[in-house]
Amino acid sequence: MSETLLSSRNLAFELYEVLDAESLTQRERFADHSRETFDAALGTARTIAEKFFAPHNRKNDENEPEYVDGAAVLIPEVKPAVDAFIEAGFQNASRSFEDGGMQMPNLLARACFAHFQSANIATSSYPMLTMGAGHLIEVFGNEEQKQRFLKPMIDGRFFGTMALTEPHAGSSLSDLRTRAEPAGDGTYRLKGNKIFISGGDHPLSENIIHMVLAKLPDAPPGVKGISLFIVPKFLVNDDGSLGKRNDVILAGLFHKMGWRGTTSTALNFGDNGDCVGYLVGEPHKGLNYMFQMMNEARIGVGMGAIMLGYAGYLYSLDYARERPQGRLPDGKDPTSPQVSIIEHTDVKRMLLTQKAYVEGAFDLGLFCARLVDDGHTGVSEEERKNADELLDLLTPIVKSWPSEYCLKANELAIQILGGHGYTREYPVEQYYRDNRLNPIHEGTHGIQSLDLLARKVTQNKGAGLRQLVGLMQSACKRAAAYESLTELRQPLEKLLERLTGTTTGLIGDLMAGKVSLALANSALYLKVFGHAVIGWRWLEQAIRAEEGLARGNSADEAFYKGKLQAARYFLTWEVPGCHHELDLLDARDPTCLDMQDGWF
Amino acid sequence: MSETLLSSRNLAFELYEVLDAESLTQRERFADHSRETFDAALGTARTIAEKFFAPHNRKNDENEPEYVDGAAVLIPEVKPAVDAFIEAGFQNASRSFEDGGMQMPNLLARACFAHFQSANIATSSYPMLTMGAGHLIEVFGNEEQKQRFLKPMIDGRFFGTMALTEPHAGSSLSDLRTRAEPAGDGTYRLKGNKIFISGGDHPLSENIIHMVLAKLPDAPPGVKGISLFIVPKFLVNDDGSLGKRNDVILAGLFHKMGWRGTTSTALNFGDNGDCVGYLVGEPHKGLNYMFQMMNEARIGVGMGAIMLGYAGYLYSLDYARERPQGRLPDGKDPTSPQVSIIEHTDVKRMLLTQKAYVEGAFDLGLFCARLVDDGHTGVSEEERKNADELLDLLTPIVKSWPSEYCLKANELAIQILGGHGYTREYPVEQYYRDNRLNPIHEGTHGIQSLDLLARKVTQNKGAGLRQLVGLMQSACKRAAAYESLTELRQPLEKLLERLTGTTTGLIGDLMAGKVSLALANSALYLKVFGHAVIGWRWLEQAIRAEEGLARGNSADEAFYKGKLQAARYFLTWEVPGCHHELDLLDARDPTCLDMQDGWF
Repeated sequence: MSETLLSSRNLAFELYEVLDAESLTQRERFADHSRETFDAALGTARTIAEKFFAPHNRKNDENEPEYVDGAAVLIPEVKPAVDAFIEAGFQNASRSFEDGGMQMPNLLARACFAHFQSANIATSSYPMLTMGAGHLIEVFGNEEQKQRFLKPMIDGRFFGTMALTEPHAGSSLSDLRTRAEPAGDGTYRLKGNKIFISGGDHPLSENIIHMVLAKLPDAPPGVKGISLFIVPKFLVNDDGSLGKRNDVILAGLFHKMGWRGTTSTALNFGDNGDCVGYLVGEPHKGLNYMFQMMNEARIGVGMGAIMLGYAGYLYSLDYARERPQGRLPDGKDPTSPQVSIIEHTDVKRMLLTQKAYVEGAFDLGLFCARLVDDGHTGVSEEERKNADELLDLLTPIVKSWPSEYCLKANELAIQILGGHGYTREYPVEQYYRDNRLNPIHEGTHGIQSLDLLARKVTQNKGAGLRQLVGLMQSACKRAAAYESLTELRQPLEKLLERLTGTTTGLIGDLMAGKVSLALANSALYLKVFGHAVIGWRWLEQAIRAEEGLARGNSADEAFYKGKLQAARYFLTWEVPGCHHELDLLDARDPTCLDMQDGWF
Repeated sequence: MSETLLSSRNLAFELYEVLDAESLTQRERFADHSRETFDAALGTARTIAEKFFAPHNRKNDENEPEYVDGAAVLIPEVKPAVDAFIEAGFQNASRSFEDGGMQMPNLLARACFAHFQSANIATSSYPMLTMGAGHLIEVFGNEEQKQRFLKPMIDGRFFGTMALTEPHAGSSLSDLRTRAEPAGDGTYRLKGNKIFISGGDHPLSENIIHMVLAKLPDAPPGVKGISLFIVPKFLVNDDGSLGKRNDVILAGLFHKMGWRGTTSTALNFGDNGDCVGYLVGEPHKGLNYMFQMMNEARIGVGMGAIMLGYAGYLYSLDYARERPQGRLPDGKDPTSPQVSIIEHTDVKRMLLTQKAYVEGAFDLGLFCARLVDDGHTGVSEEERKNADELLDLLTPIVKSWPSEYCLKANELAIQILGGHGYTREYPVEQYYRDNRLNPIHEGTHGIQSLDLLARKVTQNKGAGLRQLVGLMQSACKRAAAYESLTELRQPLEKLLERLTGTTTGLIGDLMAGKVSLALANSALYLKVFGHAVIGWRWLEQAIRAEEGLARGNSADEAFYKGKLQAARYFLTWEVPGCHHELDLLDARDPTCLDMQDGWF
């Protein structure tokens, strides 16, 4: 097997043929960068991922963190891995040079990080969580907080977490019960219990900075009464040294189906009445702040799902090439040699499906990562605004679609390996188990579907949706220049036309107050919308593949033909299947809404 | 939670309202039985399953068998469970009174066994494997073999296995390499390696009887050169006492994703040149014998998949009723109490989908079990022949459809429990892991699709298919008497009409030698055929539900309304989606066939 984490040819295709990463170097912020610096960073990421992350991926799974004397104990391989990651600068890949970063475009930082997610999703989570927590302080914290808590996170001395969920409040954050009382000295005393806090304890860093959602005494009810606090595991003295242990207790560890190397913790804040917290930004704005960071966090979850899918795809592809079994339907002579299973059409189907899911989602993930760049560093105000609006709309898709379909890809990888795939002697069953978390955390599938239909399609008066439709129409128009793409383009055009009509109807119903019925089948809407988006991304890839073939480089021919075949699979096998779901949506089918508890 | 294994109301509906189990008591063989004896046996099964099987289901998973000094060691709870099972007579439920059995219809034996599969699929596998192995000796063995090996299996002293797979030959049995040399005394000496042999070693019985496929020296190549042998772990003396240890070595255990309580073994036969085997029946007929037992084995796999789906459905249903979270879309006041998540339409969707999959498949599983009875004890030659032919056709469906869709049900159960569902503190993730084996063993999904399209639809000159179409048309005709069933009936009629045409076309292509293209999309054919069958079974259930409602018993009203809603879900949400797959089949779409190794 030549490559196990991702196909570097495909990555280069995405960065340099589809998403034009080189054009980013013309922006002032990235002027010191070039394709060479990008490729060097990618190469380093791959090397460190292969050397420090991949080798203990299975061991992480087999030896999940243990609760010993109030602390979480990990296998020893995790720390050298995250140390190497930090040492190489990936913790701060997109931060400014002056803040100790590499000042890379977000697109490239994501592409680098993808290698670590593929190699070892559990170990890669510790730096990812720290990046998310640090980002909150960076954007909403005050100078003192940045100096005291963020700086050591950038330096790799402190790690971070996001502490949202409580035992009785998962999806329903408005019901949080954790309280924060002013202590009179500008600090607060927190009291409450949080569960499923990833990275809530570990021995990887000197300190852990928890970003905690809690309610002030005068908080209005619901989501408008939630504030954000910094709660360090150890207090931090003015000189930056560690002070006393804060009143944050590791109450226990959860034992997960997969993703086992990342501690999932129950944390008790203020059991002894002395849990010190620091308010971030203004009171009652906490959920707002979290939401502003959510787009990037959800791209991160989507990319994790994609990379687990990618790892499984590459493994099962290699296996299918090596494993002889059976003969083709038109050559059953038992004395003839067996063929490799990749010769069987049904195995090709399972590989092609994986390729379509994984590479389609990978393209979308990186497209969204580039939107983050365009939102931050786009050359005009309008470009930045457009990018933000489009990203807002695509966020529920980039989070949920890979979580569902790259998980399906993992299921197919197991199937290709057959009985072997079902054993822990091979890695593919772990990929499935790891990936199964993604449709749940950072907003369940159901939450994403409501976010899309009830908020995102109408946000900014539908500006994001208009942009997306325009981009899809533009792709279809460009594809029309290729006779060979006709069969791929037409299903997308058909779907887009119907989806637009369905959307208009549903929005109308929502505006007219028919909320329950309009939202009843949001899961179907999420599926169809996602398939339209991925169909569009495959048509874009197909256009680039045609352009690539036209250049006539014979070494690339097989690669581009594979792209065209995967695009064909997705656009002719998957996209047309959505019309039945649109029928149900258009009919406002009440089957699920009408079902009664007592009838089950 | 009142019931955890299955809904006894639903079981009674199946047995006495849909499948008319009572009519079986009019047959001579079952004349001593009545609804009362059936219900007593079902009650005993439930009691033993709850008392002895369910309590160690998680422990089985957490403490998989260990290899110690050449033997497999299990947790101590397994033996008392299988002992209680045997003691209560379930090992021989359908055997004749004179052979020490309960002489129950196969339908009832399956229904009893379903409780054990739901409670603990791993522990239930040991008796199931023994029943399969014993059945082979019963039908094809000689008198001496029956006395020496079968009798102790009936008595519960010996257990059995089926030893087919080899390291290089899983789906491709024609490439088996295990050899059997005549020893000159009527016995044989076997040499070869087998893998994935379930129950290949354990301390539950005095002896283990392996039913081994191997090739004689003069064997013709391929599947026509495979013979069946009895290979006991310990030789058995003429007086029935155990002789010396046979040359069968436990080479190791596989570590599975789930179903961990059942040993999955690598067995070496004849490493020391002294592995004694006994030929069963005639030479070179081994695979034939296995195939004759396959229908029932595959119903068993399907029922296992169904019961895992059932257990997850009931657990997630109970959780959804108990778990408060969030508010409905039209009542977002954060000071109002939270609703149980079963109130959310998307949760109802996930429960209704599970109900439709699990209860639809359960109906099919029991329908097929009754076909076994009709094949054995049907009143006329014609009835028996019809039953056999229909069962032949339905076998790939009853094996594969539950393996795919009840697995999906388990995925939905996890999703309903959210973060909790992802932890091993709750049972649903184990159901998924256990169930993931079912699309792989006893013929993979791909193998089932080829069995259906390349063999079963044309078998007996299409007699089975004609019967099935006739039964489906009859159901549609009876449904037409109910105005309320119009919307449920029409999608099935439409699908049936198209599927018939598609089938005719594909058969024509196969006859014309266009084998590769006709079989290329067999996976789609399997899916559509399966959905048509389950759609038919749901229409049958809907008719019975209407009949039930008409009886006007108010205590049953909610049950029947639930049946109608699940039927509506399956027939209007799932069945119409198959037309796109039929389009691809009709077009003989070559996308997967054309894909090339080098393009991936």
